[in-house]
Amino acid sequence: MKKIILFALPIFMLMAFTRQDKVKVIFFGDSITQAGVNPGGYVKRIDSMARVQGKMNYDFIGAGIGGNKIYDLYLRMEDDVLSKNPNVVVLYIGVNDVWHKASSGTGTDADKFAKFYQAVINKIKAKNAKIILCTPAVIGEKTDGSNQQDGDLTEYSKIIRGLAQKNELPLVDLRKAFIDYNNKNNKENKDRGILTTDRVHLNAIGNQLVADEMWKAIQAL
Amino acid sequence: MKKIILFALPIFMLMAFTRQDKVKVIFFGDSITQAGVNPGGYVKRIDSMARVQGKMNYDFIGAGIGGNKIYDLYLRMEDDVLSKNPNVVVLYIGVNDVWHKASSGTGTDADKFAKFYQAVINKIKAKNAKIILCTPAVIGEKTDGSNQQDGDLTEYSKIIRGLAQKNELPLVDLRKAFIDYNNKNNKENKDRGILTTDRVHLNAIGNQLVADEMWKAIQAL
Amino acid sequence: MKKIILFALPIFMLMAFTRQDKVKVIFFGDSITQAGVNPGGYVKRIDSMARVQGKMNYDFIGAGIGGNKIYDLYLRMEDDVLSKNPNVVVLYIGVNDVWHKASSGTGTDADKFAKFYQAVINKIKAKNAKIILCTPAVIGEKTDGSNQQDGDLTEYSKIIRGLAQKNELPLVDLRKAFIDYNNKNNKENKDRGILTTDRVHLNAIGNQLVADEMWKAIQAL
Amino acid sequence: MKKIILFALPIFMLMAFTRQDKVKVIFFGDSITQAGVNPGGYVKRIDSMARVQGKMNYDFIGAGIGGNKIYDLYLRMEDDVLSKNPNVVVLYIGVNDVWHKASSGTGTDADKFAKFYQAVINKIKAKNAKIILCTPAVIGEKTDGSNQQDGDLTEYSKIIRGLAQKNELPLVDLRKAFIDYNNKNNKENKDRGILTTDRVHLNAIGNQLVADEMWKAIQAL
Repeated sequence: MKKIILFALPIFMLMAFTRQDKVKVIFFGDSITQAGVNPGGYVKRIDSMARVQGKMNYDFIGAGIGGNKIYDLYLRMEDDVLSKNPNVVVLYIGVNDVWHKASSGTGTDADKFAKFYQAVINKIKAKNAKIILCTPAVIGEKTDGSNQQDGDLTEYSKIIRGLAQKNELPLVDLRKAFIDYNNKNNKENKDRGILTTDRVHLNAIGNQLVADEMWKAIQAL
Repeated sequence: MKKIILFALPIFMLMAFTRQDKVKVIFFGDSITQAGVNPGGYVKRIDSMARVQGKMNYDFIGAGIGGNKIYDLYLRMEDDVLSKNPNVVVLYIGVNDVWHKASSGTGTDADKFAKFYQAVINKIKAKNAKIILCTPAVIGEKTDGSNQQDGDLTEYSKIIRGLAQKNELPLVDLRKAFIDYNNKNNKENKDRGILTTDRVHLNAIGNQLVADEMWKAIQAL
Repeated sequence: MKKIILFALPIFMLMAFTRQDKVKVIFFGDSITQAGVNPGGYVKRIDSMARVQGKMNYDFIGAGIGGNKIYDLYLRMEDDVLSKNPNVVVLYIGVNDVWHKASSGTGTDADKFAKFYQAVINKIKAKNAKIILCTPAVIGEKTDGSNQQDGDLTEYSKIIRGLAQKNELPLVDLRKAFIDYNNKNNKENKDRGILTTDRVHLNAIGNQLVADEMWKAIQAL
Repeated sequence: MKKIILFALPIFMLMAFTRQDKVKVIFFGDSITQAGVNPGGYVKRIDSMARVQGKMNYDFIGAGIGGNKIYDLYLRMEDDVLSKNPNVVVLYIGVNDVWHKASSGTGTDADKFAKFYQAVINKIKAKNAKIILCTPAVIGEKTDGSNQQDGDLTEYSKIIRGLAQKNELPLVDLRKAFIDYNNKNNKENKDRGILTTDRVHLNAIGNQLVADEMWKAIQAL
């Protein structure tokens, strides 16, 4: 009898582990996150780090679509995020809201960015999922403040920092992390090639930096 | 007994009239609709026309906010429209989606305009309200096709016409109506002053034209 | 003695023909003209037509640079045009002045377009060269007026038509010619592929149409 | 004999002073310089400082026109500057080249900004006038790098600094001076009201700061 119980416990634990206790983490964002699920991408790297550390109770899911802005997330969040009952949603958005002002005249006004961002937070909260906010990293890696949209991207990052504080949510400040890294490692003031391939999308080091920062925040929840 | 019945009937009718049978029409849009509820505005004019014609069973409500684009309607439609249980929603939006491309770099991409517009339609349909679509009228009244954003506004109007057809919804083609009116009445190729005060917002004649077209469509439902 | 004179005359004439009497025509413009000197390009086609017709006394020179707007022409006209002592300058510019408003926020204001255009005309006139003006053809070939920048391109074409009239200069109205051609030959309302490869740059038929129109205007001088 | 000489000298000196030796300084720029000649403006302040210091041999002339970009200066420099035979030209331009990208889609590309700027320098040099370059100060006074166009304005300032070095010309680095001043005096991170009235145009303190910096540079020639 005792033996049976001893044997049964691990089975129960395993079942619980695989079926009930897995922490579902959805990364919700734009093309950076869409690429994040590819080999070498930041989502894949987080998954690998978790496995190496023996933390098998996570399910990491990418929900990134190229060109997305905050209001696109709001439009598709029911289908792509909430319907999947996530435990954690990592919000990583904002580059296109700024970038598209210059490239196609279809960026997002700052006040509306804040309004939609809050609405996205509200909907995730209502589903009792935890939320991690991220600032958009860079549009250009030059360190002397001369990337065309540095000012605007800093402004939108401030909006997100403010929302993290107001909503008492953890923040992964990628903009700060990227600028700090570049200040140390981009002495030649290059506009790409340090953490990005093309001023915006992540190279291997950039993906790893994002993965490290997010994985810390996920574990700290 | 008969007398009592004769007396009772009007009371019953009056009750039904005020409490159950009023058709609630919400005009959902931007600054043009926001101004529409002012004296002389198109919503007020529809209300007056209905009363003059003895059609008292309508409740006309303006839900316009300056600067709104299609995605702003989507964000606030629960609070400002659906929660009020409308019988009819008149959708009159699109000018800012085009205009803000040139004025602040924050217009709406055509494909996203279509996507959000369809999402707004879907939500209204799900509440069993009737829907009337409108094309955005003008950004500039010149008749020789040389208003800066004529091409884009025509494109977005085509998107709305397509959505009306696809969703089998009545369409008030204000863009066509305004162009037809200007072709007849704007021989001097002025950019404002015929139906608008400032190339976009309606003067008295513009408000009356919109009121006439919408009132026809509302009665035809 | 007589024989020598008879023999000398043709030689003199030939010398005059090759050295003094050749009509130097410079096509001054943007990437469309830059491509115009390639095989199949409109400048090459004009050259071929002239030769076939036995009109050997022309020297056709392309002076197009990609991305140029009216003020770029003004900046480089001394070096690239006036220093070559042209007899005729064909001005074919305007697409980028409009296009770059939407693509990079660096278009040209209409009033400054007119001002620089007049300044370019004045400088060519001061060198006693003849001038032919051209309207910019298309940014998109759709025939229902729904190409995004149709309105603005029509406005800038009107400015050029006005300058042609005011300065009493011949006009090759390419915008009109392209729209007329598309109205007849683009029943499917395609945005490219009729006279352009990519909504702006000319395919073989487009190059031939431009060549035909310009060659007529050059001969009519 | 001696007396006559003693008497004659001052007359000669006075004549030289008023007719021949006056240093003609032209301030060449946009609306900031246009306002600079008004009471309290930076040109008027330089004039006053010179007089107070007894330096009467200067003639300060404003040549600013609202909305001007570098290519507008190039277009009108013959009429408004060179024809007046200046001894010194102070070039103060660049705000609109950046600003109009966001406000009307008609800014100036960086490479063309550099090209026209060099062309303006060349033309002034050819007239043997001395040149002082200035960086554009601010579009927004926030000190945390979040003014929308901070990045771009810094980039265009770098272009001007590079041109000063390449052409061995004195530089008044107004962008640096304004940022330094704000870092000390704008602890509340306001976007206006420290040195500007409206994020761009100068208040009294801003006009005095510009006057001080320029007056130093003029005297150092």
